[in-house]
Amino acid sequence: MKHAALSARMGGLRSSAIRDLLTLTARPDVISLAGGLPDPNFIPRERISRAAADALGDASSVQYGETSGLRHLREVIAARESVKIGRTLESSDVVVTHGSQQGLSLLAQVLLDAGDTVVVEDPAYTGALQVFRTAQATLAAVPVDADGMDTEVLEAKLAGGLRPKVVHTVSNFHNPRGSVLSLERRAHLAKLADTYGFWILEDDPYGELYFDGPPPLPVAALSDRVIRLSSASKVLAPALRVGWLHGDRRVCEAVELIKQGADLCGSSLTQQIAADLFSDTAWFDAHLDKLRASYGNRAKALVSALEAGFGDSARFSPVRGGMFCWMESLEPVDTAAVLDVAVEHGVAFVPGAAFGVDADLSLAARLCFATYPETVLEDAARKLCDAFRDASAQSRG
Amino acid sequence: MKHAALSARMGGLRSSAIRDLLTLTARPDVISLAGGLPDPNFIPRERISRAAADALGDASSVQYGETSGLRHLREVIAARESVKIGRTLESSDVVVTHGSQQGLSLLAQVLLDAGDTVVVEDPAYTGALQVFRTAQATLAAVPVDADGMDTEVLEAKLAGGLRPKVVHTVSNFHNPRGSVLSLERRAHLAKLADTYGFWILEDDPYGELYFDGPPPLPVAALSDRVIRLSSASKVLAPALRVGWLHGDRRVCEAVELIKQGADLCGSSLTQQIAADLFSDTAWFDAHLDKLRASYGNRAKALVSALEAGFGDSARFSPVRGGMFCWMESLEPVDTAAVLDVAVEHGVAFVPGAAFGVDADLSLAARLCFATYPETVLEDAARKLCDAFRDASAQSRG
Repeated sequence: MKHAALSARMGGLRSSAIRDLLTLTARPDVISLAGGLPDPNFIPRERISRAAADALGDASSVQYGETSGLRHLREVIAARESVKIGRTLESSDVVVTHGSQQGLSLLAQVLLDAGDTVVVEDPAYTGALQVFRTAQATLAAVPVDADGMDTEVLEAKLAGGLRPKVVHTVSNFHNPRGSVLSLERRAHLAKLADTYGFWILEDDPYGELYFDGPPPLPVAALSDRVIRLSSASKVLAPALRVGWLHGDRRVCEAVELIKQGADLCGSSLTQQIAADLFSDTAWFDAHLDKLRASYGNRAKALVSALEAGFGDSARFSPVRGGMFCWMESLEPVDTAAVLDVAVEHGVAFVPGAAFGVDADLSLAARLCFATYPETVLEDAARKLCDAFRDASAQSRG
Repeated sequence: MKHAALSARMGGLRSSAIRDLLTLTARPDVISLAGGLPDPNFIPRERISRAAADALGDASSVQYGETSGLRHLREVIAARESVKIGRTLESSDVVVTHGSQQGLSLLAQVLLDAGDTVVVEDPAYTGALQVFRTAQATLAAVPVDADGMDTEVLEAKLAGGLRPKVVHTVSNFHNPRGSVLSLERRAHLAKLADTYGFWILEDDPYGELYFDGPPPLPVAALSDRVIRLSSASKVLAPALRVGWLHGDRRVCEAVELIKQGADLCGSSLTQQIAADLFSDTAWFDAHLDKLRASYGNRAKALVSALEAGFGDSARFSPVRGGMFCWMESLEPVDTAAVLDVAVEHGVAFVPGAAFGVDADLSLAARLCFATYPETVLEDAARKLCDAFRDASAQSRG
């Protein structure tokens, strides 16, 4: 293939704006609220180290493994997910993937042909957009508000003739919007799936990170047209690269088949580590409690400082869990333009436009509160406030 | 999607016959020469354990990493590959993948549209066939003999109008054929790529496992139309899931872009372990010497025992490295039919037909000599000989 042809093939794709942004803002003098990174201090390295040493006592930890994942890990995940969805899953119902991003990617290969319609949220998780664009799907956007995806809008589109193969939703503590899909909308979405025959991909990496109380029942509890995805990245460690999915058996078998060609299997070593940590329930429950309390305190500290600093000039969505705070400027200031000024002030974020499909999100921004302690977040809020003030003054001047 | 539609979509794909076979033959009373598994006793678990403990002393080992791989690992790989191909690679020339299987899969997504022609070897590495079938490529088979892919046949097909986008070759210690692509054929293949403008995927997981002396120059040393893939799975441990590729910069950038959507990034932990072991050159060189000597002795023991047992009734290819011995029965006995009898005798192998594209390989078999010590291999040879004798008698009877 000539380079021109290669460019044409890849023309529909672009590097994740966020990954590029992370490189730009990875300066030691910048407090970056841009990433979606867990605080490395909350990643249990000592416990992982002990689990690694234990696993490496056995030869199975270094050999090829089953494509669908280590049986013990699938058992532990099946048990945890059974409680969540209120029906019993077997280990054979679970496919372990190389992070839940691989789950999305394999599902797109299984479920979609080029030109098929996929409903995405607006704003959307950019990693999902990349997957569906790679699959050459036609994207149809449905707005997300403080209660998650607006299923009334979805229903109107369906009534108007839209026939998606797949509807993707980040149901809990949405990335980037922070919102939780309400129980009413979950039930509505499940009913629409049954009526119109689409698959729901319930993408839930953040559901365990609740601050006040657990989120509503998973959509997977309300319909069997749901493939539910989750991950160890936000609760244990991204470097384990352990995600999983479960749902319709035929779809999962097809995912496993595609995974054989995609990478043969995952790492027996990191899967044994994940199984060890998940099955040490006393330790894991205490670890989750610590994450919930710590991230919750950080969210409160950041939002309080921002509200104090911005006053009536911006609105911040209430944060009930996860890693992100969503900001909407009430003054006409393009957050993409503010970013340059903000970096000069020593703080970074992701402009809302990076997550937009159809929506104009030029006044919005995603702020990650997970990576730094409260005092640093309070400093970041002051710098952000100064940056917006300077940018506003510049645009008026 | 209804189940019927899903079945239709997946109809062109099938589970790897070999992975299914491995399940069937994983009985404790069966000596399985069917797998392509390194001997777990040769996987340096203690050294890996030390590297894991060291890596986990630093927070970067548990966090998300760069999509193209840990910089230190890419530096170490670039240095090693530079020596092999005789020109200097930078770390930025290397993309680390989730095993080299992921490299193949991403390359297929980058380089191929449905219906494009791919030249595969016959017999072929079945993992490559899965990837190209998933990409809905049209396969054109070129026979492999004791000197690797028959490039004269390839040239004749090209002269006859065949226009492949990609030619895939396992250049060193072929899976399943065991053969090494001769230097003359490497040069011929490189020239054909330049003339006809196809990409060569030089798939080389076994090249370090030579018994008598190193294989000829990589094809990547002879043309810049080569993407070269390799892996830590056979020389360190499959569970690290560390593979890599390098070649044309535009292709590699496109691979990295597709990998963002495929799985975001690999494991920082297993990549740090691999970098540690590869860069400990005194240890790694001694480790490779041990693997070469041990696998070489096993190959000799198996082939000697087989030749003594089978006499004039079968031919065994000389084994110069890698993990596989290729058997061709000189009597008209279908090896797929022998397999059932062999399992009763307590030995398993992969029938040649599992690797065939166009070729009739019903008289052939792949035997892996890597997993067991010599005495067990000699026992396996006796059982195999008995099984073939019984199967012959049955077919005559």
